[in-house]
Amino acid sequence: MLLSSIYRSKFVRCPLYGFIGLSNRENRLLNTIAMQRLSRIKQLAHTYVVYPSAVHTRFEHSLGTLHLADRVCDQLGFRKRERKVVRIAALLHDVGQGPFSHVWDEPMRWINGEDYSHEDVTKLIIESDTEIGRALGNLRSKVLEIFTEDTLSSDVISSDLDVDKMDYLRRDSYHTGVAYGLFDLERIIRTLGRMSEVGRDYLAVHEKGKDALESYRLARYAMHMQVYEHHARIIADDMFIKAIKSALEEGCLAKEELQISKDQNAFIDGFLKLDDFSIQHRILEGSTGIAKELIEDIRNRKLLKRAFKVPLTQRFVKHALRRRELARMNRNDIESAEEKIAKELGIDPAYVIVHLQSVEIKLYDSFEQMLRKKEKNIFVIGANGEPSLLDEESPISASHDPVRRLYVFCPEKYKKKAREIAEDKFKVKSVLSN
Amino acid sequence: MLLSSIYRSKFVRCPLYGFIGLSNRENRLLNTIAMQRLSRIKQLAHTYVVYPSAVHTRFEHSLGTLHLADRVCDQLGFRKRERKVVRIAALLHDVGQGPFSHVWDEPMRWINGEDYSHEDVTKLIIESDTEIGRALGNLRSKVLEIFTEDTLSSDVISSDLDVDKMDYLRRDSYHTGVAYGLFDLERIIRTLGRMSEVGRDYLAVHEKGKDALESYRLARYAMHMQVYEHHARIIADDMFIKAIKSALEEGCLAKEELQISKDQNAFIDGFLKLDDFSIQHRILEGSTGIAKELIEDIRNRKLLKRAFKVPLTQRFVKHALRRRELARMNRNDIESAEEKIAKELGIDPAYVIVHLQSVEIKLYDSFEQMLRKKEKNIFVIGANGEPSLLDEESPISASHDPVRRLYVFCPEKYKKKAREIAEDKFKVKSVLSN
Amino acid sequence: MLLSSIYRSKFVRCPLYGFIGLSNRENRLLNTIAMQRLSRIKQLAHTYVVYPSAVHTRFEHSLGTLHLADRVCDQLGFRKRERKVVRIAALLHDVGQGPFSHVWDEPMRWINGEDYSHEDVTKLIIESDTEIGRALGNLRSKVLEIFTEDTLSSDVISSDLDVDKMDYLRRDSYHTGVAYGLFDLERIIRTLGRMSEVGRDYLAVHEKGKDALESYRLARYAMHMQVYEHHARIIADDMFIKAIKSALEEGCLAKEELQISKDQNAFIDGFLKLDDFSIQHRILEGSTGIAKELIEDIRNRKLLKRAFKVPLTQRFVKHALRRRELARMNRNDIESAEEKIAKELGIDPAYVIVHLQSVEIKLYDSFEQMLRKKEKNIFVIGANGEPSLLDEESPISASHDPVRRLYVFCPEKYKKKAREIAEDKFKVKSVLSN
Amino acid sequence: MLLSSIYRSKFVRCPLYGFIGLSNRENRLLNTIAMQRLSRIKQLAHTYVVYPSAVHTRFEHSLGTLHLADRVCDQLGFRKRERKVVRIAALLHDVGQGPFSHVWDEPMRWINGEDYSHEDVTKLIIESDTEIGRALGNLRSKVLEIFTEDTLSSDVISSDLDVDKMDYLRRDSYHTGVAYGLFDLERIIRTLGRMSEVGRDYLAVHEKGKDALESYRLARYAMHMQVYEHHARIIADDMFIKAIKSALEEGCLAKEELQISKDQNAFIDGFLKLDDFSIQHRILEGSTGIAKELIEDIRNRKLLKRAFKVPLTQRFVKHALRRRELARMNRNDIESAEEKIAKELGIDPAYVIVHLQSVEIKLYDSFEQMLRKKEKNIFVIGANGEPSLLDEESPISASHDPVRRLYVFCPEKYKKKAREIAEDKFKVKSVLSN
Repeated sequence: MLLSSIYRSKFVRCPLYGFIGLSNRENRLLNTIAMQRLSRIKQLAHTYVVYPSAVHTRFEHSLGTLHLADRVCDQLGFRKRERKVVRIAALLHDVGQGPFSHVWDEPMRWINGEDYSHEDVTKLIIESDTEIGRALGNLRSKVLEIFTEDTLSSDVISSDLDVDKMDYLRRDSYHTGVAYGLFDLERIIRTLGRMSEVGRDYLAVHEKGKDALESYRLARYAMHMQVYEHHARIIADDMFIKAIKSALEEGCLAKEELQISKDQNAFIDGFLKLDDFSIQHRILEGSTGIAKELIEDIRNRKLLKRAFKVPLTQRFVKHALRRRELARMNRNDIESAEEKIAKELGIDPAYVIVHLQSVEIKLYDSFEQMLRKKEKNIFVIGANGEPSLLDEESPISASHDPVRRLYVFCPEKYKKKAREIAEDKFKVKSVLSN
Repeated sequence: MLLSSIYRSKFVRCPLYGFIGLSNRENRLLNTIAMQRLSRIKQLAHTYVVYPSAVHTRFEHSLGTLHLADRVCDQLGFRKRERKVVRIAALLHDVGQGPFSHVWDEPMRWINGEDYSHEDVTKLIIESDTEIGRALGNLRSKVLEIFTEDTLSSDVISSDLDVDKMDYLRRDSYHTGVAYGLFDLERIIRTLGRMSEVGRDYLAVHEKGKDALESYRLARYAMHMQVYEHHARIIADDMFIKAIKSALEEGCLAKEELQISKDQNAFIDGFLKLDDFSIQHRILEGSTGIAKELIEDIRNRKLLKRAFKVPLTQRFVKHALRRRELARMNRNDIESAEEKIAKELGIDPAYVIVHLQSVEIKLYDSFEQMLRKKEKNIFVIGANGEPSLLDEESPISASHDPVRRLYVFCPEKYKKKAREIAEDKFKVKSVLSN
Repeated sequence: MLLSSIYRSKFVRCPLYGFIGLSNRENRLLNTIAMQRLSRIKQLAHTYVVYPSAVHTRFEHSLGTLHLADRVCDQLGFRKRERKVVRIAALLHDVGQGPFSHVWDEPMRWINGEDYSHEDVTKLIIESDTEIGRALGNLRSKVLEIFTEDTLSSDVISSDLDVDKMDYLRRDSYHTGVAYGLFDLERIIRTLGRMSEVGRDYLAVHEKGKDALESYRLARYAMHMQVYEHHARIIADDMFIKAIKSALEEGCLAKEELQISKDQNAFIDGFLKLDDFSIQHRILEGSTGIAKELIEDIRNRKLLKRAFKVPLTQRFVKHALRRRELARMNRNDIESAEEKIAKELGIDPAYVIVHLQSVEIKLYDSFEQMLRKKEKNIFVIGANGEPSLLDEESPISASHDPVRRLYVFCPEKYKKKAREIAEDKFKVKSVLSN
Repeated sequence: MLLSSIYRSKFVRCPLYGFIGLSNRENRLLNTIAMQRLSRIKQLAHTYVVYPSAVHTRFEHSLGTLHLADRVCDQLGFRKRERKVVRIAALLHDVGQGPFSHVWDEPMRWINGEDYSHEDVTKLIIESDTEIGRALGNLRSKVLEIFTEDTLSSDVISSDLDVDKMDYLRRDSYHTGVAYGLFDLERIIRTLGRMSEVGRDYLAVHEKGKDALESYRLARYAMHMQVYEHHARIIADDMFIKAIKSALEEGCLAKEELQISKDQNAFIDGFLKLDDFSIQHRILEGSTGIAKELIEDIRNRKLLKRAFKVPLTQRFVKHALRRRELARMNRNDIESAEEKIAKELGIDPAYVIVHLQSVEIKLYDSFEQMLRKKEKNIFVIGANGEPSLLDEESPISASHDPVRRLYVFCPEKYKKKAREIAEDKFKVKSVLSN
């Protein structure tokens, strides 16, 4: 490990990579309020209700991402200065994540519009937070560019084959105890290269790394199916979202707090106080109604149960129009369905969740999809130097259609009745018999 | 894994053991307020300030302990009924742990006397908590006996070679990413046996497992030195204790809350609300003074630094009387030293910590120590059936004296001055040069 | 691990499963000439030329297979007697493997016809070997039935989801150091069940294990691509086959030795003397010609090199008839191509290898293929109890066409010329540029 | 992993370190007869009779040693040229190992005197082998110096804390499946430094790595007790030595072949033909007597058994003079004891083995021992820069006396009688009861 001496100022243990070396500046960044806060945000939100060991944090993941960024920079032959910037961007890439990570995106979208992404807050913090700014010094604008411009360096941090995913797939595997995410990291890194096109270079993998790349995209798929989209985790996440909704209605949380545009410094101040636990305590102390009840239920693992489940496939929903109708339900349709079912059950709609799941089998792109896609595709460089798409090279393929399922969750004792209501409403049989 | 069918009602993933099977009753116990609370108590308190991945919880450890208890019961040939009881006792053994695990023992001792142990609360909860009681049903008194009577079954849960330590040594290794705790678990379990003495049977290890046993006691020693007693973790733990002290003084925490004897139901109700995060939020919202500042400093990793360190050995403290004097300091001596140093520095005594560390190299017992010791020694059963002490069998031995060190911690900028004051006060040179 | 006491007579360490418990009878089987011989047969033939750590043996794998067989028997609720038989069948399943495992099948087919499989020898040894027979006692015929009759028990040992593959995928991963074979073993075992059909029960996996099953079939595919079919390993295997051919021609190996039908006892006696090293020494001492040279070259890693490579796909071989012609080449066509190329190069045909690789993406079966297939398909049992095919359930699929490639291997210094000759002869460009 | 580009010419998989990068020259060295031969020499000789997975080779270990050498060179800040030399010395350090590794040292000592070490052959091969010489080019003399001169570079390859041991402890753990050798490699490497003394620099470990160093020396001790000195492995090794002795007597092996000094080129030619399997086949084909029988017995795992065992400690051999007498037995005494016991049993002395085991608890040095020891001690560098001995720093210590045991091995059916004869002859009771 030939880290040049500036990255040996501090070493942090990592169960995946042994030790992670840091520069002085990186160590200062680590000890900011903004970064320390990530040690109170679980990487996988409520996944611990299914996998009790999955309580690892965004803080640990941020360090791992920095480490992999370094290895990729080395493989790509980046200069010192560029490497310094990419490492820091990797370290900071999740600084804008809210409580329970991606779950927080949902309430943020209610206020800031559908285009909202936690990266907006990441950029805002890098741009405006005083403590972070002091530590970044003259690198600030360069680091920011990684998140705003479209370059090979930004691909390292965010693309179909970025160090973010490479780290979390393996790390989430380690901490949940499943093998699904154990793709062949070493081989991907060793076969990574750049492909020059008009304008700029793109990340690509040499043909020798094709199977490793295959293992990577399958790992991604499998982790989604087994871990990230596990129904019990979805239930807890959804209950939390309902609690936030109620808290906003009850007034123990103010819309302004979630609104980015207004007063940016005030927003950042408020935002940096939010973490998995502070938001719970805000509600436990501020709410006297449903928000509080929901949070207590999550904390005591009194979760809603699956009352109804149907995959939106030809086999289970034969009628094509009905299938289309169900798959197209929007937030209003869902809310009104929840209200209707709740009304018939005689309970508050906060306790009925209609969930339309749509798991995209990402990374499987046909030529047609490549044309339409905004993200950056992964190219394979053949022995003869010609690029090809992985999907054109591999005998393994995936349906380009997402896996869609419709769920209804409700309290245990209403399960049977809720199923009957839902079957009646959606005109389709549940595959669960209760 | 031939778990009889009652233990197949639910399976939980475990990164160490694959899957852990549970009975219906055990699953109900898992979903109580008392047990779910353990998922908000970190196994290793503030160790995450050094090892960022060490945020695993008492909840995960409790499941692991149940699993190992099952394997030991099997090895010892326990009957069904006894096995059922031992499994549950293993699951519940930490239910009385407070915020930040053992760190909480300190304030509890201020109120409840030096004899206090978290096991007192464990027993209280098993005895009195309604939800736990309902789940336990007619097993309640049997489970309680494990914690109150002195039997082979209780040795499985608590002794020099119990499933608690076996689980946490390996689990803490896994989650910190160090190899120190990886003793030869499989071999210990396979060579475990019972030794009949007057009155009752004792746990013992067959001679064939001698090296595994050696690896176990060395693992214990190494984990203490490298992880459990790491100075940065000690600093954060001590800062937390200072915060609790201040909170009691400020009145944002009431002594009555920590007092066991008074109203047991009220105590349990209050206690079950305490966890790593709730106690922080209590202070963040209730305190306006030093308690709040200290908690914020811990959360933002603005930790006190080592200003002074001296091992209390002949090499570093030549004068024997002085060495004795330093090693014998009691709480009052320490507090008055802290006050004196703080006064000279011109800062609040809450920001000066004098820490007298004493790491006992446990499990190394000479024959003389065996006679004096209250705990249960580990015997080795020779090929001829005769018992011997591991220390008499092994060429590896340890000093029976604890490793003692005296530390002074203070804010970064006072380090140099604090060292000079401490050297002057304790009449001995620090080994740190700052 | 509740192995009933008969399986605790001996414990053997296993890096994958901790300890493997054995009965007295199994231990006796282990210490037979026939089984000990497997400790001189590498699991992966010449794969060590690419992965130096891959020298693990069929002996180790046989123990692992027994262990997994036990776990599956337990999961399926097999009775004691059946379990005893299945464990032993698992232990013995590879006893008929020849030198370099499956590589030996090729010369055996020259003599015994295309239908030959190493299982024929396995059966023969179980049936006729005296030492094995003494250890088996009255179980002999029952064990033999596992290999001759078509039952649920035989599915455990040999089917699309057998303990043989489950063990070797993970074990080969461990010993090569690649992650590809790390499918979710624990979950597959826990969700394994039986499906009753007319006549008998079949192995099936409950819907909850669907993703684990997916991980299993992808592991199989990936291990084939990355390890089992690695070109350098293929080259060494092929060189060995050429050496055997030459040795038969030179007379330092006699056809009769490979012929099963003649005198079975004599055949077994001779066969049990064959292992990876004895066959090499036979040739090193008996041959004075090409056979010896080839064996020396393998041992000293002077391997032939890839001179020509072309995937038989539309992209690389546009002309459909030519593609068909190349894909259909039989042994005679290949030999005559080798001779022709060798002649033009002016070297012995033993140093030119034309290899037609065909990697089938097994385990991916459409409904149509299920109908035609002889092997046993893997069914998924839905929540409602209905069976379905994995391919109908999963969004991941694979081309049902094998991956076909045509290679020419020759000595390093002839690479360029050999490529030109091959391009000329096969009328298609190599993708290697040399 | 910032290996400068020359070490990226080839990458080899390693289950411990991911990928190992090699230069062109190193790759050429790998493909020599001398190095490839190591892929037929098991790292742990006959240990596979106890741990079936322990068939890994000196070849794999040589690659691992090169990799660790690189990391240590990097940590110590070695220049390019020095690093190149140290890497190659690490790769070649075992090239002089004979069949079954250290077991071969014994017959070599019969012929070449007690001072013989396999390093003599390593030096000879580096100095005289043509193929190796061609690959080494102008580095030859520099590489040789590592083995002949006393420098910091030679400490990296051979000292109390060398990369040889660091690799094999972990590698042997991995392949046997025991945890004993898993010391904290990462931390040792990160805290490694140099200590300047008169004349030259020495390897030392910074105080922060003290516990890692402790874990290393305990790993060494534990691996010796559990793996390297396991009695069943000793039995097979000893049987092999007896076979070599008989083969020399029978004349199917010639003394001249083992004699270094005579004709060095002839010696090397002969030596490079020797490996674990070739020596067996030499005897299987050349011997008609006891040598052949012994080799067959080892191959078929018909091992001699322990008939008699006594630890040479006060507890088991009370009489001090007798203890001294037994511990002092030399080769002649042992042979005559074997003959006497064999005679009384009425069997050939080749089937009776008297083994005087002496396991030194290395790496534990008092100040007194440091003075007397020829090897290089490991120093710990304190925070203040002063060196100290680990034994003076650590509360863990070991008896400086070796663990001595006296064994008698013989065929199973003579066990009881042999024990009685041995007890009578040695005037001490066996601790085995048979």
